Amino acid sequence: MPTDPHRRPTADSVEATLAIASDRWSFLILREAFFGVRRFNDFQDNLGISRKVLSARLGTLTDEGIFERQQYQTRPVRHEYRLTDKGRDLYTVTVALMQWGDRWLMDRPPLMLEHEADGGEVEVVLRCRVCGEPLNAREVGWRANPAAAGHRHG
Amino acid sequence: MPTDPHRRPTADSVEATLAIASDRWSFLILREAFFGVRRFNDFQDNLGISRKVLSARLGTLTDEGIFERQQYQTRPVRHEYRLTDKGRDLYTVTVALMQWGDRWLMDRPPLMLEHEADGGEVEVVLRCRVCGEPLNAREVGWRANPAAAGHRHG
Repeated sequence: MPTDPHRRPTADSVEATLAIASDRWSFLILREAFFGVRRFNDFQDNLGISRKVLSARLGTLTDEGIFERQQYQTRPVRHEYRLTDKGRDLYTVTVALMQWGDRWLMDRPPLMLEHEADGGEVEVVLRCRVCGEPLNAREVGWRANPAAAGHRHG
Repeated sequence: MPTDPHRRPTADSVEATLAIASDRWSFLILREAFFGVRRFNDFQDNLGISRKVLSARLGTLTDEGIFERQQYQTRPVRHEYRLTDKGRDLYTVTVALMQWGDRWLMDRPPLMLEHEADGGEVEVVLRCRVCGEPLNAREVGWRANPAAAGHRHG
């Protein structure tokens, strides 16, 4: 009953996002892209992933508009995978995964991300748009959106 | 060569986090937990997941210290799964996944998250700790941490 505001819709955007970035390979391919990797062989070398799995994941991510395939060479024809705006917006998810691992799994972060303009440390924060305060899960409530029209595509 | 600051270590914290939260079920189990679900049958009902897969994922997440198993009934003995501090800190990742899906996959968000104190919309922001400005991937650089000691556990 999607119009009942008391029932939480489980077909939410967490589920929709995970239907596209379906496994750890998808997230690792995205990580590589954020570090500037664009070519099939470079993804493969850095990740140690099979060509078959890499090709399938890149295909899905391209079909979903996260990468666009661009020709960079004609003889022989070669393509590279560039992040679209939609793809680049997954950077927050990627850094959130890294930040949690840095905090809870590592003694010291293997990799430091910094704001190039001032060398400042990069952080992902959950906050309130009104008061600006950082929030934890216990301070957050939810309501179902009765106007929700479901997936934009399909 | 982990001490070469010019080579990006691929065994970073993104990879370490994904080794624990290994598939979409792990993230969906976490989502349920953030909405207050604690009992095996409730996870199963909400997710339509097989008992075998649910049991395996809850086992891994408990072994990794993300959930703790607590007895809530003696006759018969029943346990529930509660998020630890380490587990609760994955809320930012979960909301980041939701926010991206809301922006790029939905006409309108099926679910609205709000700060309970003032009703403000909840957002996940990537920013610089020094200047406080929101950042995108192009404004962020990296360096390898030569002092990194690798995984804290194992």
